[in-house]
Amino acid sequence: MSGQLLVINPNSSTEVTEAIDRAMAPLRAASGVGIKVVRLEDGPPGIETQQDVESVVPLIVRRIRDTNDAGGYVIACFSDPGLHAAREVTRRPVFGIAECGILTALTLGARFGLISILRQVIPRHLRYLGAMGVTERFAGDRAIEITVTELADERTTFARMVAIGTELRDENGADVLVMACAGMAEYRARLAETLGIPVIEPSQAAASMALGRIALGW
Amino acid sequence: MSGQLLVINPNSSTEVTEAIDRAMAPLRAASGVGIKVVRLEDGPPGIETQQDVESVVPLIVRRIRDTNDAGGYVIACFSDPGLHAAREVTRRPVFGIAECGILTALTLGARFGLISILRQVIPRHLRYLGAMGVTERFAGDRAIEITVTELADERTTFARMVAIGTELRDENGADVLVMACAGMAEYRARLAETLGIPVIEPSQAAASMALGRIALGW
Amino acid sequence: MSGQLLVINPNSSTEVTEAIDRAMAPLRAASGVGIKVVRLEDGPPGIETQQDVESVVPLIVRRIRDTNDAGGYVIACFSDPGLHAAREVTRRPVFGIAECGILTALTLGARFGLISILRQVIPRHLRYLGAMGVTERFAGDRAIEITVTELADERTTFARMVAIGTELRDENGADVLVMACAGMAEYRARLAETLGIPVIEPSQAAASMALGRIALGW
Amino acid sequence: MSGQLLVINPNSSTEVTEAIDRAMAPLRAASGVGIKVVRLEDGPPGIETQQDVESVVPLIVRRIRDTNDAGGYVIACFSDPGLHAAREVTRRPVFGIAECGILTALTLGARFGLISILRQVIPRHLRYLGAMGVTERFAGDRAIEITVTELADERTTFARMVAIGTELRDENGADVLVMACAGMAEYRARLAETLGIPVIEPSQAAASMALGRIALGW
Amino acid sequence: MSGQLLVINPNSSTEVTEAIDRAMAPLRAASGVGIKVVRLEDGPPGIETQQDVESVVPLIVRRIRDTNDAGGYVIACFSDPGLHAAREVTRRPVFGIAECGILTALTLGARFGLISILRQVIPRHLRYLGAMGVTERFAGDRAIEITVTELADERTTFARMVAIGTELRDENGADVLVMACAGMAEYRARLAETLGIPVIEPSQAAASMALGRIALGW
Amino acid sequence: MSGQLLVINPNSSTEVTEAIDRAMAPLRAASGVGIKVVRLEDGPPGIETQQDVESVVPLIVRRIRDTNDAGGYVIACFSDPGLHAAREVTRRPVFGIAECGILTALTLGARFGLISILRQVIPRHLRYLGAMGVTERFAGDRAIEITVTELADERTTFARMVAIGTELRDENGADVLVMACAGMAEYRARLAETLGIPVIEPSQAAASMALGRIALGW
Repeated sequence: MSGQLLVINPNSSTEVTEAIDRAMAPLRAASGVGIKVVRLEDGPPGIETQQDVESVVPLIVRRIRDTNDAGGYVIACFSDPGLHAAREVTRRPVFGIAECGILTALTLGARFGLISILRQVIPRHLRYLGAMGVTERFAGDRAIEITVTELADERTTFARMVAIGTELRDENGADVLVMACAGMAEYRARLAETLGIPVIEPSQAAASMALGRIALGW
Repeated sequence: MSGQLLVINPNSSTEVTEAIDRAMAPLRAASGVGIKVVRLEDGPPGIETQQDVESVVPLIVRRIRDTNDAGGYVIACFSDPGLHAAREVTRRPVFGIAECGILTALTLGARFGLISILRQVIPRHLRYLGAMGVTERFAGDRAIEITVTELADERTTFARMVAIGTELRDENGADVLVMACAGMAEYRARLAETLGIPVIEPSQAAASMALGRIALGW
Repeated sequence: MSGQLLVINPNSSTEVTEAIDRAMAPLRAASGVGIKVVRLEDGPPGIETQQDVESVVPLIVRRIRDTNDAGGYVIACFSDPGLHAAREVTRRPVFGIAECGILTALTLGARFGLISILRQVIPRHLRYLGAMGVTERFAGDRAIEITVTELADERTTFARMVAIGTELRDENGADVLVMACAGMAEYRARLAETLGIPVIEPSQAAASMALGRIALGW
Repeated sequence: MSGQLLVINPNSSTEVTEAIDRAMAPLRAASGVGIKVVRLEDGPPGIETQQDVESVVPLIVRRIRDTNDAGGYVIACFSDPGLHAAREVTRRPVFGIAECGILTALTLGARFGLISILRQVIPRHLRYLGAMGVTERFAGDRAIEITVTELADERTTFARMVAIGTELRDENGADVLVMACAGMAEYRARLAETLGIPVIEPSQAAASMALGRIALGW
Repeated sequence: MSGQLLVINPNSSTEVTEAIDRAMAPLRAASGVGIKVVRLEDGPPGIETQQDVESVVPLIVRRIRDTNDAGGYVIACFSDPGLHAAREVTRRPVFGIAECGILTALTLGARFGLISILRQVIPRHLRYLGAMGVTERFAGDRAIEITVTELADERTTFARMVAIGTELRDENGADVLVMACAGMAEYRARLAETLGIPVIEPSQAAASMALGRIALGW
Repeated sequence: MSGQLLVINPNSSTEVTEAIDRAMAPLRAASGVGIKVVRLEDGPPGIETQQDVESVVPLIVRRIRDTNDAGGYVIACFSDPGLHAAREVTRRPVFGIAECGILTALTLGARFGLISILRQVIPRHLRYLGAMGVTERFAGDRAIEITVTELADERTTFARMVAIGTELRDENGADVLVMACAGMAEYRARLAETLGIPVIEPSQAAASMALGRIALGW
């Protein structure tokens, strides 16, 4: 459908792509703007290193440049790869899930914490928070440090998220959390309930902002 | 309709309320969530002084506390009066147009400028930007300094907005602007086109974020 | 006496008002400017929620507007309710105890900590520190989390203050503390001595600054 | 008199010392704490370079260490020379006029400007504002660039102050100004009236804070 | 030579590469560590857009990964393309000229200004300054806005640099400037002399830091 | 040798001076610019208090003013005593080891930690980080709290450094450390290896930057 929102998962994982797609269901139900979720077939299976981030940028830029009919775009990786390059190749709005997840957190608490998957991404997050100019509202960034195999084990994953979220809340003083990863929307509500503070699923946050902007035609 | 978005104009002006209502049209057309715009009949005709801001807080809090069926709220005054008190009296999301207008600007440029109506509100804006922790992205705040009578003259108002927007762009280095006032959506597109940089209408920005959150049920 | 300092306790508690009054004794003894401490009879018994804060603003503004003969004002609640609105209705200086307590702390240490009563006020404090632009000097804010009944028990209260102050000093790196509450001046000296770092009683800090400004006639 | 405030002018100028002394008159009249103003006979005639600043530090430290009976100290030079060293040699409170002038400005406006004498001191002021952690409230620092001979000509000096103050107000957006120099209190009220915004005389601001602290015995 | 410094010009221009090479002469003369300057043959002729930046990242990463014998690296483009990805593929130190140019400026003045070639790069610079966490020392960024053809005309280019540098010094308050571009070292000394404030040539600044680190073996 | 780098140890300790001298060996070997390390015979045995810092300033300034043939200077005390005064008395570059150590850390990690000797110096460090404008990159400052006698015991000293470095890494989130002291270069490599993150020896960092600048003739 012309003018719909295109959500691009920059990795090649169909599981993650499907999880993002499911996360779009409530927004789809409430909006007249369609939402399509795609993956980059040539992308890496997951995005961990800075090199992974850089490697998907040309793929994302090309995908957006070559799309004629989308009304707007969400780049569904928490490193917001290629966000500013993508904005050069289209007049339609382009959103990153890190940017939108964090901005949405600013409406839900005084200090936000990030729940990351791997510790090695934290320096990249810190650079990004600095570039966004929002470090004054930042409480902390902690990683669940879980392997791909373990990620498949929902019980372990959720338990780690609760443990890390508790540390962010009690030691770092976060009163709102952002899941620093796409594709984990299924855990959001349970995590928020368990911890007693709001939790942001960033691809939903980004799609929300994108749908409004598409409707407005900005 | 149950679950719809309630946009509260804290002043008593029907003209402003109707202008906000018209600004909601594109969002209404694209969303399955309804949008209702109301004014505070007991509010002041306009909100200029800090006393005006404080005077509407109990009215807004009461209105929200007494509403049973709204899915979410937008407080449509750029001072975001009562935002944090309102969040205490409802579990539904509450948005301020200053907060959302500024956060949306962060997705559209590197440094944002504010176009205010009166110079006297600028210290209040500065305090609010500090509280939001976004001063690093702030380019400047300038006022069109126009009287109520002159505001009725669209030609004068627009000319002042262009003049002030040009100063913010060229002297303060803003590459995105936020209209620091509700009810002036009619000028947005023309202003953006004339200045060549994006312009945010804050009640549309807030309603966009609110509709997404209502749909998600956060 | 004309030109004297009026200290307004925005809650209706006579105990707190009397405690503030006693805290003024050394300043009274040393100054030719008189000091009068009053409570807001219509104020809430204590100020905890944002709604409590907002509820006292019109009372404070009215009290100041209707006072003819004061030389200056101190609003003796750590949320500084109505500070900026009050400054609109008088040409005499108006001080908030949070503002003055924190500014005074900047002359006594490198990083200040706040000892709050209840955890729920911390987000409000964080917004205020941001609005003041002093977060770079901020070490942390911790609450003694004590009920009104327990507050009457001096031994428990002091023990909690020592525990929280120790955490602020040793874990947050504070080298000066501010009591984020009026009416607890009796604990100040003992707390400072026990912890080995300066402790600010904010209504004394505010009255000090106010007396000087009244004398100068600024 | 034992326990009185000792104001130390770190330069050797009797004119400046007498001007500071006259500035203390309203505070003396209102306080039971005495105020004594002295100069450093061995200090330089004026303090301009960083070397001048450093040269007076040992003199100030020695003067404070060797004073037995003062209740508190003000170092009356806008570079606050030796402030932290002085605090090591006495348990009585020591205040710098830059620190107190700037902190007082934070209670009188949203953004403060500094009126300096010579351009060459501005980098030193910028470092100090950074060390104080208050740059977010800083509007600008401009110098009247007047020679010692011209300073004697009150008409020229005042005209330059008005010119520079107008630039700080209109171009830098300052809504409160601090005179970045001791000994010019005579100009304060006229300057504030002419510019329509508050002006801080920093030695009066420092003495105000010091008198309160001496009275309190902190 | 094994262990020498490899300076990579990420564009394909031989003129720029040779200019960078000449800029290395004084460092070569004084150091026992050799310096080799290369260009990316497959790079774009110049780097202006964000897409240009992204396009050279894989080329730079590959070049560094495939180099066996260098002792350290300088990426000689003011966008520091691929800096963090490059640091993942080698244990030898990698430096960006923007990072080093700006850090060196912090040792030479209180507030630094950037002289850019084109206005469109300024938002990218602002994001980078935020990521570096040095915005508090930032005075401004202005572009000489000169076309490639005009760049060949030294007289015009220098005149524009002087004009822009004067604005940065007098309107933005910069007391040290960084040339936000590689390959223009020939202008540095003359520009510094004309403006009366230090000017940083960033590839020289980066090579200086790199040579020390290679010598130390960190 | 004319034009060489003069490294000034502001204390009178020959042990520290010799340790600094040994730390220069790799830089000496790689550079054509000579390096001479001297101590201030009249300086205190160690620099701990603010008074110690101030006491060496005139000695350093005089030493630099009276040196005719140095090409540049490093002040080898982590308080950077007299840095700005020294820059007034010579046209040759002057570097402080705190400034250079911290700036170098910014090229090696996202958040830096400081390993101090004594807790009492931390407030001074915090003021300096504020003056440098780099607090956004600052993770924490912890002291090994070791007496002069214990410092002679290498095993104890190293064990304390590992303990403190571990806390900075794991509790404060530092991914690069700076030794906040001169004369301990012998521990650097072992400490970095043990902790698994880079460690900066600040006199080496400063000498590196100085040698480049001397070679360039800036």
